[in-house]
Amino acid sequence: MERNNRPLILITNDDGFRAKGIRELIKALKDLGELVVMAPDGPRSGMSSAITSLVPIKYKVEWEEPGVTVYSCTGTPVDCVKLAINEVLDREPDLLVSGINHGGNMAICVNYSGTMGAAAEGCIFGVPSLGVSLLDHRADADFTECCRLGRLTAEKILEKGLPHGTYLNLNVPTDIPVKGLRICRQADGRWVKEFKRSEDASGQTVFWLTGYFRNDDQHDDNDDKLLNEGYASLVPCKIDITDYAFMQELQTWNL
Amino acid sequence: MERNNRPLILITNDDGFRAKGIRELIKALKDLGELVVMAPDGPRSGMSSAITSLVPIKYKVEWEEPGVTVYSCTGTPVDCVKLAINEVLDREPDLLVSGINHGGNMAICVNYSGTMGAAAEGCIFGVPSLGVSLLDHRADADFTECCRLGRLTAEKILEKGLPHGTYLNLNVPTDIPVKGLRICRQADGRWVKEFKRSEDASGQTVFWLTGYFRNDDQHDDNDDKLLNEGYASLVPCKIDITDYAFMQELQTWNL
Repeated sequence: MERNNRPLILITNDDGFRAKGIRELIKALKDLGELVVMAPDGPRSGMSSAITSLVPIKYKVEWEEPGVTVYSCTGTPVDCVKLAINEVLDREPDLLVSGINHGGNMAICVNYSGTMGAAAEGCIFGVPSLGVSLLDHRADADFTECCRLGRLTAEKILEKGLPHGTYLNLNVPTDIPVKGLRICRQADGRWVKEFKRSEDASGQTVFWLTGYFRNDDQHDDNDDKLLNEGYASLVPCKIDITDYAFMQELQTWNL
Repeated sequence: MERNNRPLILITNDDGFRAKGIRELIKALKDLGELVVMAPDGPRSGMSSAITSLVPIKYKVEWEEPGVTVYSCTGTPVDCVKLAINEVLDREPDLLVSGINHGGNMAICVNYSGTMGAAAEGCIFGVPSLGVSLLDHRADADFTECCRLGRLTAEKILEKGLPHGTYLNLNVPTDIPVKGLRICRQADGRWVKEFKRSEDASGQTVFWLTGYFRNDDQHDDNDDKLLNEGYASLVPCKIDITDYAFMQELQTWNL
Protein backbone atom coordinates (compact mmCIF):
# COMPACT_ATOMS: atom_id res chain seq x y z
CA MET A 1 0.00 0.00 0.00
CA GLU A 2 1.33 3.38 -1.00
CA ARG A 3 0.07 4.86 2.22
CA ASN A 4 2.58 2.88 4.27
CA ASN A 5 5.51 4.48 2.49
CA ARG A 6 4.54 7.84 3.92
CA PRO A 7 6.00 8.82 7.28
CA LEU A 8 3.90 7.60 10.21
CA ILE A 9 3.32 10.44 12.68
CA LEU A 10 1.95 9.76 16.15
CA ILE A 11 0.18 12.72 17.73
CA THR A 12 -0.89 13.17 21.33
CA ASN A 13 -1.39 15.91 23.92
CA ASP A 14 -2.48 16.49 27.51
CA ASP A 15 -5.50 18.71 26.90
CA GLY A 16 -7.51 15.85 25.38
CA PHE A 17 -8.47 14.97 21.82
CA ARG A 18 -11.20 17.66 21.69
CA ALA A 19 -8.81 20.60 22.35
CA LYS A 20 -8.30 23.19 19.65
CA GLY A 21 -4.52 22.85 19.93
CA ILE A 22 -4.42 19.22 18.80
CA ARG A 23 -6.99 19.81 16.05
CA GLU A 24 -4.89 22.66 14.65
CA LEU A 25 -1.79 20.47 14.89
CA ILE A 26 -3.49 17.70 12.91
CA LYS A 27 -4.37 20.19 10.16
CA ALA A 28 -0.82 21.57 10.11
CA LEU A 29 0.89 18.16 9.79
CA LYS A 30 -1.68 16.32 7.66
CA ASP A 31 0.20 16.40 4.38
CA LEU A 32 3.53 15.36 5.97
CA GLY A 33 2.47 11.74 6.46
CA GLU A 34 -0.07 9.32 7.83
CA LEU A 35 -1.33 10.63 11.16
CA VAL A 36 -2.43 8.48 14.07
CA VAL A 37 -3.74 10.44 17.04
CA MET A 38 -3.98 8.76 20.45
CA ALA A 39 -4.96 11.42 22.96
CA PRO A 40 -6.59 11.48 26.39
CA ASP A 41 -10.40 11.51 26.48
CA GLY A 42 -10.31 14.66 28.62
CA PRO A 43 -7.89 17.18 30.18
CA ARG A 44 -4.69 15.69 31.68
CA SER A 45 -2.65 18.85 32.28
CA GLY A 46 0.13 18.57 34.83
CA MET A 47 0.29 14.77 34.55
CA SER A 48 4.03 14.78 33.86
CA SER A 49 5.16 11.21 32.98
CA ALA A 50 2.48 9.61 35.15
CA ILE A 51 1.37 6.08 34.20
CA THR A 52 -1.80 4.22 35.12
CA SER A 53 -1.12 0.98 36.96
CA LEU A 54 -3.94 0.52 39.50
CA VAL A 55 -6.77 0.36 36.93
CA PRO A 56 -6.78 -0.83 33.31
CA ILE A 57 -7.05 1.62 30.42
CA LYS A 58 -8.92 1.43 27.13
CA TYR A 59 -9.23 3.32 23.87
CA LYS A 60 -11.68 3.84 21.02
CA VAL A 61 -11.84 5.41 17.56
CA GLU A 62 -13.24 8.94 17.64
CA TRP A 63 -13.08 9.77 13.97
CA GLU A 64 -11.31 8.85 10.75
CA GLU A 65 -10.62 10.67 7.54
CA PRO A 66 -8.15 9.84 4.74
CA GLY A 67 -4.67 9.75 6.29
CA VAL A 68 -5.88 10.54 9.82
CA THR A 69 -7.19 8.24 12.56
CA VAL A 70 -8.11 9.76 15.91
CA TYR A 71 -8.34 7.57 19.02
CA SER A 72 -9.20 8.64 22.55
CA CYS A 73 -7.73 6.88 25.59
CA THR A 74 -8.81 6.78 29.22
CA GLY A 75 -5.23 7.07 30.47
CA THR A 76 -2.51 9.67 30.86
CA PRO A 77 -0.52 11.19 27.98
CA VAL A 78 2.28 8.66 28.60
CA ASP A 79 -0.28 5.83 28.63
CA CYS A 80 -1.46 7.08 25.23
CA VAL A 81 2.03 6.79 23.77
CA LYS A 82 2.64 3.37 25.34
CA LEU A 83 -0.71 2.02 24.16
CA ALA A 84 -0.31 3.36 20.62
CA ILE A 85 3.17 1.94 20.14
CA ASN A 86 2.63 -1.37 21.97
CA GLU A 87 -0.89 -2.23 20.82
CA VAL A 88 -2.26 -0.05 18.02
CA LEU A 89 0.36 0.91 15.43
CA ASP A 90 1.57 -1.71 12.94
CA ARG A 91 5.02 -0.12 12.67
CA GLU A 92 7.30 2.25 14.60
CA PRO A 93 6.32 5.90 14.12
CA ASP A 94 8.79 8.13 12.26
CA LEU A 95 7.88 11.07 14.45
CA LEU A 96 5.88 11.88 17.57
CA VAL A 97 4.44 15.35 18.08
CA SER A 98 2.75 16.21 21.37
CA GLY A 99 0.55 19.29 21.59
CA ILE A 100 -0.19 21.92 20.74
CA ASN A 101 -0.46 22.63 24.43
CA HIS A 102 -2.71 25.44 25.61
CA GLY A 103 -0.12 27.21 27.80
CA GLY A 104 3.67 27.40 27.89
CA ASN A 105 5.96 24.55 28.93
CA MET A 106 9.18 26.48 29.31
CA ALA A 107 11.66 26.31 32.21
CA ILE A 108 10.73 23.87 34.97
CA CYS A 109 7.23 23.40 33.49
CA VAL A 110 8.82 20.67 31.38
CA ASN A 111 8.96 18.66 34.62
CA TYR A 112 5.20 18.81 35.31
CA SER A 113 3.80 18.88 31.78
CA GLY A 114 1.83 15.95 30.40
CA THR A 115 2.56 17.25 26.91
CA MET A 116 6.28 16.99 27.54
CA GLY A 117 5.86 13.70 29.43
CA ALA A 118 4.42 12.24 26.23
CA ALA A 119 7.28 13.66 24.15
CA ALA A 120 9.79 12.11 26.56
CA GLU A 121 7.97 8.78 26.29
CA GLY A 122 8.24 8.82 22.50
CA CYS A 123 11.96 9.45 22.90
CA ILE A 124 12.29 6.51 25.31
CA PHE A 125 10.79 4.32 22.56
CA GLY A 126 13.41 5.61 20.12
CA VAL A 127 10.91 7.73 18.19
CA PRO A 128 12.12 11.26 17.25
CA SER A 129 9.84 13.37 19.43
CA LEU A 130 8.75 16.99 19.75
CA GLY A 131 6.51 18.80 22.24
CA VAL A 132 4.84 22.02 21.08
CA SER A 133 3.23 24.62 23.35
CA LEU A 134 1.64 28.03 22.85
CA LEU A 135 1.83 30.58 25.67
CA ASP A 136 -1.94 31.08 25.67
CA HIS A 137 -4.28 29.08 27.92
CA ARG A 138 -7.48 30.20 26.19
CA ALA A 139 -9.61 27.53 24.52
CA ASP A 140 -9.91 29.71 21.39
CA ALA A 141 -6.23 30.76 21.20
CA ASP A 142 -4.77 31.60 17.77
CA PHE A 143 -2.43 28.74 16.84
CA THR A 144 -1.46 30.00 13.36
CA GLU A 145 2.15 31.00 14.08
CA CYS A 146 2.66 28.09 16.47
CA CYS A 147 1.46 25.65 13.78
CA ARG A 148 3.87 27.16 11.26
CA LEU A 149 6.86 26.75 13.59
CA GLY A 150 5.73 23.32 14.79
CA ARG A 151 5.42 22.09 11.22
CA LEU A 152 8.80 23.56 10.26
CA THR A 153 10.46 21.78 13.20
CA ALA A 154 8.61 18.52 12.48
CA GLU A 155 9.80 18.58 8.84
CA LYS A 156 13.39 19.12 9.94
CA ILE A 157 13.18 16.22 12.41
CA LEU A 158 11.82 13.94 9.67
CA GLU A 159 14.72 15.01 7.46
CA LYS A 160 17.56 14.91 10.01
CA GLY A 161 16.43 12.71 12.90
CA LEU A 162 17.40 13.26 16.53
CA PRO A 163 20.16 11.71 18.66
CA HIS A 164 19.30 8.70 20.83
CA GLY A 165 17.76 9.92 24.08
CA THR A 166 17.14 13.52 22.94
CA TYR A 167 13.77 15.17 22.25
CA LEU A 168 12.72 18.74 21.55
CA ASN A 169 10.63 21.28 23.46
CA LEU A 170 9.17 24.09 21.30
CA ASN A 171 7.39 27.03 22.92
CA VAL A 172 5.81 29.88 20.98
CA PRO A 173 4.84 33.28 22.43
CA THR A 174 1.57 35.04 21.67
CA ASP A 175 3.13 38.28 20.43
CA ILE A 176 2.85 38.47 16.65
CA PRO A 177 5.07 38.60 14.70
CA VAL A 178 7.37 36.18 16.54
CA LYS A 179 10.90 37.67 16.45
CA GLY A 180 12.43 34.34 15.43
CA LEU A 181 13.20 30.91 16.83
CA ARG A 182 16.06 30.50 19.31
CA ILE A 183 17.86 27.30 20.31
CA CYS A 184 18.31 27.72 24.04
CA ARG A 185 18.48 26.21 27.53
CA GLN A 186 15.75 25.34 30.03
CA ALA A 187 15.51 28.32 32.42
CA ASP A 188 16.53 27.75 36.03
CA GLY A 189 13.90 28.86 38.54
CA ARG A 190 10.83 27.75 40.39
CA TRP A 191 7.20 28.48 41.10
CA VAL A 192 6.42 30.56 44.18
CA LYS A 193 3.30 31.38 46.24
CA GLU A 194 1.82 28.20 44.91
CA PHE A 195 -1.47 27.86 46.75
CA LYS A 196 -4.68 29.78 47.15
CA ARG A 197 -6.53 28.85 50.34
CA SER A 198 -10.25 28.33 50.05
CA GLU A 199 -13.02 26.39 51.82
CA ASP A 200 -14.99 23.35 50.78
CA ALA A 201 -18.72 22.93 51.45
CA SER A 202 -18.10 21.70 54.99
CA GLY A 203 -15.89 24.68 55.86
CA GLN A 204 -12.64 22.73 55.68
CA THR A 205 -9.57 24.53 54.32
CA VAL A 206 -8.60 23.40 50.81
CA PHE A 207 -5.68 24.47 48.62
CA TRP A 208 -5.85 25.33 44.92
CA LEU A 209 -2.60 25.19 42.96
CA THR A 210 -1.67 28.60 41.53
CA GLY A 211 1.46 30.82 41.85
CA TYR A 212 3.92 32.30 39.40
CA PHE A 213 7.28 31.34 37.94
CA ARG A 214 10.35 33.05 39.34
CA ASN A 215 13.20 33.01 36.84
CA ASP A 216 16.53 32.63 38.69
CA ASP A 217 18.58 31.99 35.55
CA GLN A 218 21.71 34.10 34.99
CA HIS A 219 22.18 33.07 31.34
CA ASP A 220 20.87 35.18 28.47
CA ASP A 221 19.89 32.13 26.45
CA ASN A 222 17.22 30.71 28.80
CA ASP A 223 13.85 29.87 27.28
CA ASP A 224 11.68 31.84 29.70
CA LYS A 225 13.63 35.07 29.07
CA LEU A 226 13.63 34.65 25.29
CA LEU A 227 9.89 33.94 25.24
CA ASN A 228 9.28 37.11 27.26
CA GLU A 229 11.30 39.00 24.65
CA GLY A 230 9.06 37.68 21.85
CA TYR A 231 11.14 34.79 20.50
CA ALA A 232 10.00 31.20 20.09
CA SER A 233 12.24 28.81 22.05
CA LEU A 234 13.52 25.36 21.14
CA VAL A 235 15.23 23.37 23.92
CA PRO A 236 16.82 19.96 23.25
CA CYS A 237 16.02 17.73 26.26
CA LYS A 238 17.64 14.54 27.55
CA ILE A 239 16.14 11.36 28.97
CA ASP A 240 19.34 10.56 30.86
CA ILE A 241 19.30 12.88 33.89
CA THR A 242 22.52 11.53 35.46
CA ASP A 243 24.64 14.38 36.83
CA TYR A 244 27.97 13.15 35.45
CA ALA A 245 29.79 16.27 36.65
CA PHE A 246 28.94 15.47 40.29
CA MET A 247 29.77 11.76 40.19
CA GLN A 248 33.43 12.25 40.97
CA GLU A 249 32.81 14.39 44.04
CA LEU A 250 30.19 11.93 45.23
CA GLN A 251 32.84 9.19 45.08
CA THR A 252 34.82 11.09 47.74
CA TRP A 253 31.93 10.78 50.20
CA ASN A 254 33.09 7.16 50.76
CA LEU A 255 29.59 5.76 51.17
CA MET B 1 13.15 26.44 71.29
CA GLU B 2 15.89 23.85 71.28
CA ARG B 3 13.91 21.74 68.86
CA ASN B 4 14.30 24.28 66.06
CA ASN B 5 18.08 24.01 66.11
CA ARG B 6 17.86 20.41 65.00
CA PRO B 7 17.83 19.70 61.26
CA LEU B 8 14.32 19.79 59.80
CA ILE B 9 13.75 16.72 57.64
CA LEU B 10 10.77 16.52 55.29
CA ILE B 11 9.68 12.98 54.46
CA THR B 12 7.30 11.83 51.76
CA ASN B 13 6.68 8.86 49.46
CA ASP B 14 4.34 7.61 46.75
CA ASP B 15 3.02 4.49 48.49
CA GLY B 16 1.06 6.53 51.04
CA PHE B 17 1.63 7.33 54.71
CA ARG B 18 0.49 3.86 55.84
CA ALA B 19 3.18 1.97 53.86
CA LYS B 20 5.81 0.00 55.74
CA GLY B 21 8.59 1.69 53.74
CA ILE B 22 7.86 5.18 55.06
CA ARG B 23 7.30 3.95 58.61
CA GLU B 24 10.68 2.21 58.59
CA LEU B 25 12.28 5.35 57.13
CA ILE B 26 10.81 7.48 59.93
CA LYS B 27 12.31 5.12 62.53
CA ALA B 28 15.69 5.14 60.76
CA LEU B 29 15.96 8.96 60.57
CA LYS B 30 14.24 9.92 63.82
CA ASP B 31 17.32 10.85 65.81
CA LEU B 32 18.85 12.89 62.95
CA GLY B 33 16.44 15.79 63.38
CA GLU B 34 12.86 16.98 63.58
CA LEU B 35 10.78 14.98 61.13
CA VAL B 36 7.75 16.30 59.29
CA VAL B 37 6.02 13.72 57.12
CA MET B 38 3.62 14.86 54.40
CA ALA B 39 2.63 11.81 52.40
CA PRO B 40 -0.28 10.83 50.15
CA ASP B 41 -3.37 9.40 51.85
CA GLY B 42 -3.15 6.31 49.63
CA PRO B 43 -1.02 4.72 46.89
CA ARG B 44 0.30 7.11 44.23
CA SER B 45 2.81 4.88 42.44
CA GLY B 46 3.76 5.93 38.92
CA MET B 47 2.63 9.52 39.45
CA SER B 48 5.97 10.94 38.30
CA SER B 49 5.98 14.74 38.89
CA ALA B 50 2.22 15.05 38.39
CA ILE B 51 0.49 17.99 40.07
CA THR B 52 -3.17 18.47 40.93
CA SER B 53 -4.68 21.54 39.31
CA LEU B 54 -8.32 20.68 38.45
CA VAL B 55 -9.43 20.06 42.03
CA PRO B 56 -8.18 21.49 45.35
CA ILE B 57 -6.14 19.41 47.78
CA LYS B 58 -6.18 19.21 51.55
CA TYR B 59 -4.20 17.66 54.37
CA LYS B 60 -4.65 16.55 57.97
CA VAL B 61 -2.58 15.36 60.93
CA GLU B 62 -2.46 11.57 61.18
CA TRP B 63 -0.30 11.21 64.25
CA GLU B 64 2.31 13.00 66.35
CA GLU B 65 5.03 11.89 68.66
CA PRO B 66 8.02 13.81 70.05
CA GLY B 67 10.05 15.05 67.05
CA VAL B 68 7.72 13.53 64.45
CA THR B 69 4.55 14.92 62.89
CA VAL B 70 2.80 12.86 60.22
CA TYR B 71 0.35 14.51 57.81
CA SER B 72 -1.61 12.88 55.01
CA CYS B 73 -2.51 14.74 51.84
CA THR B 74 -5.11 14.10 49.15
CA GLY B 75 -2.71 15.04 46.34
CA THR B 76 0.25 13.57 44.49
CA PRO B 77 3.77 13.16 45.94
CA VAL B 78 4.80 16.47 44.31
CA ASP B 79 1.68 18.15 45.76
CA CYS B 80 2.78 16.88 49.19
CA VAL B 81 6.17 18.57 48.85
CA LYS B 82 4.69 21.82 47.52
CA LEU B 83 2.05 21.95 50.24
CA ALA B 84 4.50 21.19 53.04
CA ILE B 85 7.02 23.84 51.96
CA ASN B 86 4.51 26.53 50.93
CA GLU B 87 1.92 26.14 53.67
CA VAL B 88 2.91 23.88 56.56
CA LEU B 89 6.59 24.20 57.52
CA ASP B 90 7.76 27.30 59.37
CA ARG B 91 11.25 27.11 57.83
CA GLU B 92 13.04 25.57 54.86
CA PRO B 93 13.81 21.88 55.40
CA ASP B 94 17.49 20.91 55.65
CA LEU B 95 16.81 17.63 53.88
CA LEU B 96 14.03 15.85 52.01
CA VAL B 97 13.91 12.07 51.91
CA SER B 98 11.32 10.35 49.73
CA GLY B 99 10.56 6.67 50.28
CA ILE B 100 11.35 4.04 51.11
CA ASN B 101 9.67 2.94 47.92
CA HIS B 102 8.32 -0.61 47.69
CA GLY B 103 10.03 -1.51 44.38
CA GLY B 104 13.10 -0.30 42.49
CA ASN B 105 13.42 3.08 40.78
CA MET B 106 16.53 2.44 38.75
CA ALA B 107 17.09 3.22 35.06
CA ILE B 108 14.16 4.89 33.31
CA CYS B 109 11.87 4.17 36.30
CA VAL B 110 13.13 7.48 37.68
CA ASN B 111 11.00 9.08 34.95
CA TYR B 112 7.70 7.52 36.10
CA SER B 113 8.27 7.25 39.84
CA GLY B 114 6.25 9.38 42.25
CA THR B 115 8.95 8.78 44.85
CA MET B 116 11.56 10.33 42.58
CA GLY B 117 9.12 13.05 41.43
CA ALA B 118 8.92 14.16 45.07
CA ALA B 119 12.73 14.11 45.41
CA ALA B 120 13.05 16.22 42.25
CA GLU B 121 10.49 18.66 43.66
CA GLY B 122 12.48 19.09 46.86
CA CYS B 123 15.53 19.83 44.71
CA ILE B 124 13.59 22.44 42.72
CA PHE B 125 12.87 24.19 46.04
CA GLY B 126 16.60 24.16 46.83
CA VAL B 127 16.27 21.47 49.50
CA PRO B 128 18.97 18.74 49.42
CA SER B 129 16.89 15.73 48.38
CA LEU B 130 17.18 11.97 48.26
CA GLY B 131 14.90 9.24 46.96
CA VAL B 132 15.26 5.75 48.45
CA SER B 133 13.86 2.54 46.96
CA LEU B 134 14.07 -1.15 47.81
CA LEU B 135 13.83 -3.70 45.01
CA ASP B 136 10.97 -5.52 46.71
CA HIS B 137 7.31 -4.76 46.05
CA ARG B 138 5.97 -6.79 48.96
CA ALA B 139 4.04 -4.96 51.68
CA ASP B 140 6.08 -6.78 54.36
CA ALA B 141 9.50 -6.40 52.70
CA ASP B 142 12.59 -6.31 54.94
CA PHE B 143 13.86 -2.72 54.94
CA THR B 144 16.74 -3.20 57.40
CA GLU B 145 19.67 -2.89 54.99
CA CYS B 146 17.90 -0.23 52.93
CA CYS B 147 17.31 1.86 56.08
CA ARG B 148 20.98 1.58 57.02
CA LEU B 149 22.15 2.83 53.61
CA GLY B 150 19.42 5.48 53.42
CA ARG B 151 20.40 6.86 56.80
CA LEU B 152 24.10 6.83 55.93
CA THR B 153 23.41 8.80 52.73
CA ALA B 154 21.06 11.20 54.55
CA GLU B 155 23.74 11.92 57.16
CA LYS B 156 26.32 12.64 54.45
CA ILE B 157 23.93 15.01 52.68
CA LEU B 158 23.27 16.88 55.95
CA GLU B 159 27.03 17.15 56.41
CA LYS B 160 28.09 18.05 52.88
CA GLY B 161 25.02 19.40 51.07
CA LEU B 162 24.30 18.91 47.37
CA PRO B 163 24.95 21.15 44.36
CA HIS B 164 22.12 23.41 43.15
CA GLY B 165 19.81 21.40 40.90
CA THR B 166 21.17 17.96 41.86
CA TYR B 167 19.40 15.25 43.88
CA LEU B 168 20.18 11.62 44.65
CA ASN B 169 18.54 8.33 43.71
CA LEU B 170 19.41 5.41 46.02
CA ASN B 171 18.30 1.87 45.14
CA VAL B 172 18.97 -1.15 47.31
CA PRO B 173 18.76 -4.80 46.19
CA THR B 174 17.11 -7.54 48.20
CA ASP B 175 20.12 -9.85 48.27
CA ILE B 176 21.73 -9.79 51.68
CA PRO B 177 24.49 -8.92 52.34
CA VAL B 178 24.61 -6.00 49.88
CA LYS B 179 28.02 -6.08 48.17
CA GLY B 180 28.52 -2.33 48.65
CA LEU B 181 27.22 1.00 47.41
CA ARG B 182 28.23 2.18 43.93
CA ILE B 183 28.04 5.72 42.51
CA CYS B 184 26.79 5.13 38.97
CA ARG B 185 24.72 6.25 35.99
CA GLN B 186 21.04 5.82 35.15
CA ALA B 187 20.83 2.75 32.89
CA ASP B 188 19.75 3.30 29.29
CA GLY B 189 16.86 1.09 28.22
CA ARG B 190 13.10 0.82 28.14
CA TRP B 191 10.12 -1.26 29.16
CA VAL B 192 8.82 -3.77 26.61
CA LYS B 193 5.65 -5.85 26.18
CA GLU B 194 3.91 -3.33 28.37
CA PHE B 195 0.28 -4.40 28.32
CA LYS B 196 -1.80 -7.39 29.28
CA ARG B 197 -5.12 -7.52 27.45
CA SER B 198 -8.16 -8.35 29.50
CA GLU B 199 -11.91 -7.74 29.43
CA ASP B 200 -14.14 -5.57 31.55
CA ALA B 201 -17.61 -6.62 32.77
CA SER B 202 -19.21 -5.56 29.49
CA GLY B 203 -16.75 -7.60 27.40
CA GLN B 204 -14.78 -4.58 26.21
CA THR B 205 -11.00 -4.99 25.79
CA VAL B 206 -9.00 -3.26 28.52
CA PHE B 207 -5.23 -2.98 28.98
CA TRP B 208 -3.31 -3.50 32.22
CA LEU B 209 0.17 -2.00 32.43
CA THR B 210 2.85 -4.67 32.92
CA GLY B 211 6.02 -5.61 30.96
CA TYR B 212 9.68 -5.84 31.84
CA PHE B 213 12.72 -3.59 31.60
CA ARG B 214 15.16 -4.18 28.76
CA ASN B 215 18.61 -2.85 29.64
CA ASP B 216 20.28 -1.46 26.48
CA ASP B 217 23.16 0.17 28.34
CA GLN B 218 26.71 -0.57 27.16
CA HIS B 219 28.43 0.90 30.24
CA ASP B 220 29.49 -1.25 33.17
CA ASP B 221 28.52 1.40 35.69
CA ASN B 222 24.77 1.51 35.03
CA ASP B 223 22.47 1.20 38.02
CA ASP B 224 20.31 -1.66 36.73
CA LYS B 225 23.36 -3.86 36.05
CA LEU B 226 24.99 -3.11 39.41
CA LEU B 227 21.74 -3.83 41.28
CA ASN B 228 21.47 -7.18 39.48
CA GLU B 229 25.01 -7.93 40.66
CA GLY B 230 24.04 -7.27 44.28
CA TYR B 231 25.28 -3.71 44.77
CA ALA B 232 23.23 -0.76 46.02
CA SER B 233 23.25 2.08 43.46
CA LEU B 234 23.44 5.83 44.00
CA VAL B 235 22.79 8.04 40.94
CA PRO B 236 23.13 11.83 41.11
CA CYS B 237 20.25 13.32 39.06
CA LYS B 238 19.79 16.74 37.48
CA ILE B 239 16.74 19.00 37.23
CA ASP B 240 18.14 20.74 34.14
CA ILE B 241 17.52 18.29 31.29
CA THR B 242 18.88 20.55 28.53
CA ASP B 243 20.98 18.56 26.06
CA TYR B 244 23.85 21.06 25.81
CA ALA B 245 25.90 18.72 23.61
CA PHE B 246 23.22 18.80 20.89
CA MET B 247 22.57 22.57 20.93
CA GLN B 248 25.33 23.39 18.48
CA GLU B 249 24.16 20.89 15.87
CA LEU B 250 20.59 22.08 16.30
CA GLN B 251 21.78 25.60 15.45
CA THR B 252 22.84 24.32 12.02
CA TRP B 253 19.23 23.33 11.23
CA ASN B 254 18.57 27.03 10.56
CA LEU B 255 15.05 26.99 11.95
